[in-house]
Amino acid sequence: MTDTVNVAILGASGYTGAELVRLLLRHPRVRVTALTADRKAGHAMADVFAQFSGIELPRLTSIGEFDLDAVDLVFCALPHGTTQQVIADLFARKPSLKVVDLSADFRLTDPAAYEEWYGHPHQALELQGGAVFGLTELNREAIKAARLVANPGCHSTTSILPIIPLLRERLINPDAIVINSATGMSGAGRGAKEEMLFSEVSEGVHAYGVGRHRHTAELDQEYEKAAGRSARATFTPMLLPMNRGIYATITVTLEAGATAEALHASLATTYWGEPFVQVLPLGKAPHSRHVRGSNNVQIGVIADRGPDRAIVISTLDNLVKGASGQAVQNMNLLCGFEETDGLGQLAIFP
Amino acid sequence: MTDTVNVAILGASGYTGAELVRLLLRHPRVRVTALTADRKAGHAMADVFAQFSGIELPRLTSIGEFDLDAVDLVFCALPHGTTQQVIADLFARKPSLKVVDLSADFRLTDPAAYEEWYGHPHQALELQGGAVFGLTELNREAIKAARLVANPGCHSTTSILPIIPLLRERLINPDAIVINSATGMSGAGRGAKEEMLFSEVSEGVHAYGVGRHRHTAELDQEYEKAAGRSARATFTPMLLPMNRGIYATITVTLEAGATAEALHASLATTYWGEPFVQVLPLGKAPHSRHVRGSNNVQIGVIADRGPDRAIVISTLDNLVKGASGQAVQNMNLLCGFEETDGLGQLAIFP
Amino acid sequence: MTDTVNVAILGASGYTGAELVRLLLRHPRVRVTALTADRKAGHAMADVFAQFSGIELPRLTSIGEFDLDAVDLVFCALPHGTTQQVIADLFARKPSLKVVDLSADFRLTDPAAYEEWYGHPHQALELQGGAVFGLTELNREAIKAARLVANPGCHSTTSILPIIPLLRERLINPDAIVINSATGMSGAGRGAKEEMLFSEVSEGVHAYGVGRHRHTAELDQEYEKAAGRSARATFTPMLLPMNRGIYATITVTLEAGATAEALHASLATTYWGEPFVQVLPLGKAPHSRHVRGSNNVQIGVIADRGPDRAIVISTLDNLVKGASGQAVQNMNLLCGFEETDGLGQLAIFP
Amino acid sequence: MTDTVNVAILGASGYTGAELVRLLLRHPRVRVTALTADRKAGHAMADVFAQFSGIELPRLTSIGEFDLDAVDLVFCALPHGTTQQVIADLFARKPSLKVVDLSADFRLTDPAAYEEWYGHPHQALELQGGAVFGLTELNREAIKAARLVANPGCHSTTSILPIIPLLRERLINPDAIVINSATGMSGAGRGAKEEMLFSEVSEGVHAYGVGRHRHTAELDQEYEKAAGRSARATFTPMLLPMNRGIYATITVTLEAGATAEALHASLATTYWGEPFVQVLPLGKAPHSRHVRGSNNVQIGVIADRGPDRAIVISTLDNLVKGASGQAVQNMNLLCGFEETDGLGQLAIFP
Repeated sequence: MTDTVNVAILGASGYTGAELVRLLLRHPRVRVTALTADRKAGHAMADVFAQFSGIELPRLTSIGEFDLDAVDLVFCALPHGTTQQVIADLFARKPSLKVVDLSADFRLTDPAAYEEWYGHPHQALELQGGAVFGLTELNREAIKAARLVANPGCHSTTSILPIIPLLRERLINPDAIVINSATGMSGAGRGAKEEMLFSEVSEGVHAYGVGRHRHTAELDQEYEKAAGRSARATFTPMLLPMNRGIYATITVTLEAGATAEALHASLATTYWGEPFVQVLPLGKAPHSRHVRGSNNVQIGVIADRGPDRAIVISTLDNLVKGASGQAVQNMNLLCGFEETDGLGQLAIFP
Repeated sequence: MTDTVNVAILGASGYTGAELVRLLLRHPRVRVTALTADRKAGHAMADVFAQFSGIELPRLTSIGEFDLDAVDLVFCALPHGTTQQVIADLFARKPSLKVVDLSADFRLTDPAAYEEWYGHPHQALELQGGAVFGLTELNREAIKAARLVANPGCHSTTSILPIIPLLRERLINPDAIVINSATGMSGAGRGAKEEMLFSEVSEGVHAYGVGRHRHTAELDQEYEKAAGRSARATFTPMLLPMNRGIYATITVTLEAGATAEALHASLATTYWGEPFVQVLPLGKAPHSRHVRGSNNVQIGVIADRGPDRAIVISTLDNLVKGASGQAVQNMNLLCGFEETDGLGQLAIFP
Repeated sequence: MTDTVNVAILGASGYTGAELVRLLLRHPRVRVTALTADRKAGHAMADVFAQFSGIELPRLTSIGEFDLDAVDLVFCALPHGTTQQVIADLFARKPSLKVVDLSADFRLTDPAAYEEWYGHPHQALELQGGAVFGLTELNREAIKAARLVANPGCHSTTSILPIIPLLRERLINPDAIVINSATGMSGAGRGAKEEMLFSEVSEGVHAYGVGRHRHTAELDQEYEKAAGRSARATFTPMLLPMNRGIYATITVTLEAGATAEALHASLATTYWGEPFVQVLPLGKAPHSRHVRGSNNVQIGVIADRGPDRAIVISTLDNLVKGASGQAVQNMNLLCGFEETDGLGQLAIFP
Repeated sequence: MTDTVNVAILGASGYTGAELVRLLLRHPRVRVTALTADRKAGHAMADVFAQFSGIELPRLTSIGEFDLDAVDLVFCALPHGTTQQVIADLFARKPSLKVVDLSADFRLTDPAAYEEWYGHPHQALELQGGAVFGLTELNREAIKAARLVANPGCHSTTSILPIIPLLRERLINPDAIVINSATGMSGAGRGAKEEMLFSEVSEGVHAYGVGRHRHTAELDQEYEKAAGRSARATFTPMLLPMNRGIYATITVTLEAGATAEALHASLATTYWGEPFVQVLPLGKAPHSRHVRGSNNVQIGVIADRGPDRAIVISTLDNLVKGASGQAVQNMNLLCGFEETDGLGQLAIFP
């Protein structure tokens, strides 16, 4: 590929679309050449997101209008379900295209799992086989060689990163993983729904999708691959009165001989040198606000008072490492750029 | 006792003190005759809490100044550790006194447990034996007969209420209880500490006291009593960017033959007719904001996707049912009043 | 009237409807006999507002279904524009009915002003003449004698109360009133709109309806009546990331000879003995959180550094004194009850 | 100067210090060689601000310890009052030093004004004369030539930028400027004070320092300079439940012949091409969240309904353009760098 890639963002009027624009505008090797948003077609991006006032950006178009010839790579930030057909069409028209898909459509390898969790058969099975699960740190080589990367869910990224090494090394019991995954509101998107109103969300907390959140399927898939056997997590998502951040509190049961120290060592070793993963000193709990706005993940390991359990805590910004930041990270691999290009933003705190 | 009781609030300049005033000013049978706050002695209550502007209240005094003779019952909202000696002195001066203590000082029956969790020997062991654990719904008759009620902690109340019936009926495994207990900031009190500043707390979340929060000792005590054997919960408290509310997500492992339906039935039966406990329909998760400002607890039971686990969720307002509201409820029992007197406030939402 | 009135709430699925239910459930002389909400007809109130779980309330019906015969008084919490015809129909069917209308439909005495600000001719002019502007403290006697009370807007109540006495006594220049009126989100209602989402509102502030907010028409009407001449306020509403509270910062220019002290004395005298209005000591600014959840208004007067200007600050809870609380206060007058009945809730802080 | 400057940050444990680190770590021509924080001396920066975990930074030292020889430029983020002597000492030891001071100590040209507003005589008058008021867009050439830049206050920057052109062009009455300046909490710093606790600030709003906030002195100074005569603004600061953002609503009275259109044209012309100032289309109000985290200012002009008044609204991030961002912008001028170097961060929304 050339020094600069031309990218299109499909679904640019949502929060992950805007976050892609924020990151890509400062990427040294990217030109944003198309932005689509069917319901806002014809508007300037600054009309839809006023933080872009005064910045030159392509006008929003409908998805049918953008010039695929002028594009090397597409970020697809469309609702799941509709995405499969869109991407199949794009590849049909331009086989050399690279795609980073932020929807859930290509994350599950097993068509039966897809059908079970999403309630309908997959519409682009021929592509599903070639899709790579885009958890960058765990799947780097496959991503580099791919043309379609399925960016993982925000809850999934948060809970997969700290658990995979522990399962691979047989340090924890795959059947006794209990996850409480608290998220800020921006992960729910920009659709106008009563339950997402400020007055319905501020000054309170509630669990949602308990025992049946679809990101659970991604956990199952990745946990079982790492454990080499069946695995089962109890997964309880919770909605917090904040914009950004996922905070997963993961209670694990140690295998015989394992200790919190061993868990910590495993994670510290696995992620040593990773630019976006920080394993905090043993016993220290991270704060979501210390990764806000950045592509970072912070992980803590804390011993429980009894000998056989530990608490692993993982936090990231759902719009960055949990979505658009990891998408850019994957694009960097797809395009042969430095993996950190365009992702240097430090956390904003306070 | 007569129709009206005269009460003193020791520690009236803290949030639980102010909340007691809010509730007691509308109690039909209570007269607030003394308010103490050592560092604010001499000030009007409205200087310290401007919501009481225009309301007649006793001026704040030091704890040494208030007239014990004029008082029938004392609410003690002082820091733990100092409270033991204060209450011992009060009883020495006035044996007929009734006391509802909101500190942790008399909650643990076992002096060894107290010393282990609080780091020093108990200073008033002679009173400890007579103290009654004030979780009203579970201990009603003992409270009626007591002169010293140890009001439980806010986290404790939230996690004890929904679990005790399940342990008593042997529906869940006492060794495999995993609690994530998220709390608003007001539970941390009004002391000026950097980590409690708005900018340190808003727009983010973090766990604290993981594996060593002192309310765990109360859980152990009550869980073991109910289970009739040892019990162990993994308890992870979390701080949320909101003022009021505790939200406990409790993952339980079912004993053979038990089901989520059975758990729900047990709780619904146990709390049938209770004025302050609502068990929601099976499968429904409560929201903390629906109990905000009220003395209510809302409990939900949700089946996990596998057969042997369930998620029990419990929420209350930490300043009301988690502190001052339950203290008034206990006072009502101590004084022979209607248990609901002064506690009719409905939740404020939005 | 008898000792108890039977009331209906039209529009019970909105926030002001729910707030009326909260207040009326604790009113000693009211029975809520009907709740309407067209889009939620058939649901239990607890389905729509879970804070009412476990409380007996009439099921929601459509507006056409409720039994007018069984009702003495109607609270109308419907959108403006539609309300006029609804109320005209109710009076046609039951002339003895009393109505407290929370919409804007009957607030403006002058039909031309209504048409100018609302963009269409008034549909029930015959009722408009008999409607009384329900700012209770300023209009008590007329309200007692009325059958239709037009409850003022939330911004209007906040800015009318502290300014009317100053205009009546010719202490300030009616042409140089500058109002910044900041409001929480609950005043915008429960309709699902993008700009009301948590992520669009939290962690930020913006002005809206600048120079053309419809509550300005109410200010004009009441200011001119008080001044006995034309008056003009510059009115800038602002939306804050909070649920409840209006906070009006009103900069006034003093007439010759007037001082901040004189303004303060005028307000303190006017509102002396009023149960719901507190004038703070001169120089002290109120906080909105000290009236949260109560029917109170707190007013402060502060001298500017120059001799001829002062800042008057007024705050209330938009859902209570700014809407449902004042509606209950007006109902009390209409029904010959104590004006404070059902309005004893103290502010919730923190 | 050389291609890279070595900078020290005095007062690095406060929020403006941390924000300087955030910006400078991504500045292409800066090396942070010293960080001081007397009370935290000896700690790693990541201990004090965990968002810097994993990033190499100098350890915090006391102010006496850092090596002045190795430093070309100092950012001084110390409390006002103490700063004067510190800077005088630095210049005495190293006359070639450049200093950007974020305190209030050198902002007021007139020693009498300093003494009046700060309550004590200035301690470094010899430096005061050479200090340049660092509102970059208005004072660019003087800043380039200076060695000591007095960075303006956050409220001041917000209200000076949109008003100076209007005063210079005699479009508005200098005696009738009414400012409501709402700010987020981070501007109050990280000191542990009761009134800054989460529970004291969230879910509410209050004015503070009304009629006597010290930033008023900066407004007076700059407004009078621009107007060429006396000027007086009524300035009411307000504290909002958010972290970042200043939002100034400025009501102005038009001089004869002036219109809102003329005001808008004046601002649009003045700031045409400025990289950090966006003048929105006439009639549009900015949102503080659209500049959050960036060095941008957004300004709106809205006609009032009467002919002679207009509302000018200005918003910025108090920690960036209101403090550390403008400090970096000034450093860029002092050092001959591109003015936008290190300031490319786009706003974070949501």
